[in-house]
Amino acid sequence: LNIIRWEFLRLHLIKYGRIHSDVKLKDPFALAQKDLNHLYDDIKKELFVSKAELKSLCDYYFDGKGKAFRPMIVVLMSRALNIHNLLPGQRSIAMISEMIHTASLVHDDVIDGSDKRRGKSTINEVWGERKAILAGDFILSAASMALARIGNTTVVSVLSQVIEDLVRGEFMQLGSKENENERFKHYLEKTFKKTASLIANSCKAVSILVSSDPEVHEIAFQYGRNVGIAFQLVDDVLDFTSCANHLGKPSAADLRLGLATGPVLFACQQFPELHAMIMRRFSSKGDVDRAWQYVQQSDGVEQTTYLARRYCQEAIRQISLLRPSAERDALIRLTEMVLSRDK
Amino acid sequence: LNIIRWEFLRLHLIKYGRIHSDVKLKDPFALAQKDLNHLYDDIKKELFVSKAELKSLCDYYFDGKGKAFRPMIVVLMSRALNIHNLLPGQRSIAMISEMIHTASLVHDDVIDGSDKRRGKSTINEVWGERKAILAGDFILSAASMALARIGNTTVVSVLSQVIEDLVRGEFMQLGSKENENERFKHYLEKTFKKTASLIANSCKAVSILVSSDPEVHEIAFQYGRNVGIAFQLVDDVLDFTSCANHLGKPSAADLRLGLATGPVLFACQQFPELHAMIMRRFSSKGDVDRAWQYVQQSDGVEQTTYLARRYCQEAIRQISLLRPSAERDALIRLTEMVLSRDK
Repeated sequence: LNIIRWEFLRLHLIKYGRIHSDVKLKDPFALAQKDLNHLYDDIKKELFVSKAELKSLCDYYFDGKGKAFRPMIVVLMSRALNIHNLLPGQRSIAMISEMIHTASLVHDDVIDGSDKRRGKSTINEVWGERKAILAGDFILSAASMALARIGNTTVVSVLSQVIEDLVRGEFMQLGSKENENERFKHYLEKTFKKTASLIANSCKAVSILVSSDPEVHEIAFQYGRNVGIAFQLVDDVLDFTSCANHLGKPSAADLRLGLATGPVLFACQQFPELHAMIMRRFSSKGDVDRAWQYVQQSDGVEQTTYLARRYCQEAIRQISLLRPSAERDALIRLTEMVLSRDK
Repeated sequence: LNIIRWEFLRLHLIKYGRIHSDVKLKDPFALAQKDLNHLYDDIKKELFVSKAELKSLCDYYFDGKGKAFRPMIVVLMSRALNIHNLLPGQRSIAMISEMIHTASLVHDDVIDGSDKRRGKSTINEVWGERKAILAGDFILSAASMALARIGNTTVVSVLSQVIEDLVRGEFMQLGSKENENERFKHYLEKTFKKTASLIANSCKAVSILVSSDPEVHEIAFQYGRNVGIAFQLVDDVLDFTSCANHLGKPSAADLRLGLATGPVLFACQQFPELHAMIMRRFSSKGDVDRAWQYVQQSDGVEQTTYLARRYCQEAIRQISLLRPSAERDALIRLTEMVLSRDK
């Protein structure tokens, strides 16, 4: 299925003159590999501490088993913008993006009371809440130090905005009562803040280091924004379609946390019975199971997937405005991988 | 008593030629007042959010009832260094110092499970832990944004170091088993990181904006470091001498949290029975009361106060290296106020 989809996208791109028919779009993970070889070692150096326990805690998630999805986008965007070399500051931004991401996961797990993440126990589960709060603060402060060393205050502003967005997004997610009409807008705004802002602003930051043209900054930002939102929409779909263990968390985890994501919001248009459950955050006995059933009977999953596809198309449109390069085309291919991933 | 002490200091300063005999050292709070008039309003603007609940949460501690101790030092140091005007970037650093301080209090209260602070309920007590974690993150991210806007990457580095120190200091405080010989060194290092680093590095940051001379940066840093450590030593003494309510927290709060501060560490030299209690963090039944009794019988309070006095003398020695000004002399007077405060 993936191969058919991918062939379809390739033909689509050829048709609209975005790529040549003889181009074989490279695998983005393979293409970024050389730039990301020592990424986790470099992060551990940033987190250097003599105190053994704090160290083991901070290193816990930087075990090299992550996909490094954000750093990969950042280095490919850098090379697509620069045409050739990767600037040291851009490599730092790749690293900082992963550090900010991880710090926010650590605090989110405390806030959600989660005990599993990527198939292993969370920091709060192993070391307790107090140390998890501190570990998140510490990773964030190390990221701020690395950010300051890049020596560009616009870049500092752009990435500080991310941290603010992450908090605002998490806060929006805690909010319980929402006007039904504004619910979808609220969901997409939360999705931008919690997931896409980091990718969008990291892409923008690397563009600032290499270009003074605001249009280039905007292309980089919009590619990251659209891919980021699509990524999260697919994540929200997988929460309904993937079995447990695949994502390292149980399925329907969002419902259990009281969260109404894309599939539920679309399902609610067909089954208004979901409205009351959404309002009480699936807190009554049996709510999670019933909501799950409604989503399965609806086309919420298909509609959310379709929406993700549209965001990917916009990401492709944006990145296609850059000069051709293997890295630019790998970023195009990445959008298809975002749509077709199953874990 | 305070008047006598203060007169003693004034004579001491005259004797060593640091001030003239006809100088009346101004009250630092009065002298800084005009620069701090709208400080809390300005902080609230930085925390501007449409979401009403997040706003009320973040504004909670910036109610204008705080002493603004850190901003006061920062503006006086700025004017002592500049001789006349206060630069906008320096005013921002005064504001940021209070924001970083408050963000760390919010997280510390979650970590310590505290329900009272400055005589009112803590954020975690009123809104719950999850929102308190987020509020702390949010205040910190707003501080980072304001910091980036100053547009000086050295200043960003210097104040990012503070955030790292705050976390490391809090982590040191959580550590339970300490080698007895190294315990005092550990306590002073923790005190620097948790309290003095913010004051020292804020003073250094304002000096960077106005001078390129490393010796000037060092004077500013050392004044802040020494006053900061003295401030915390006095705080640790007041935990044993002040009645409840005065500090807005019950006395012997540190013992109840399992913390061995200056008075206990000195008392342990006279009463080795304290050693085992320190090691188990006063966790056995009756430990808190017994430790309290030992401290009262020892001269731990006097020795800690004497140590604070020595740090203040070093602060005076450092600041006296600056050219004379009303603000410099107010910073000298401040050291005596730090020593004589009773709440």
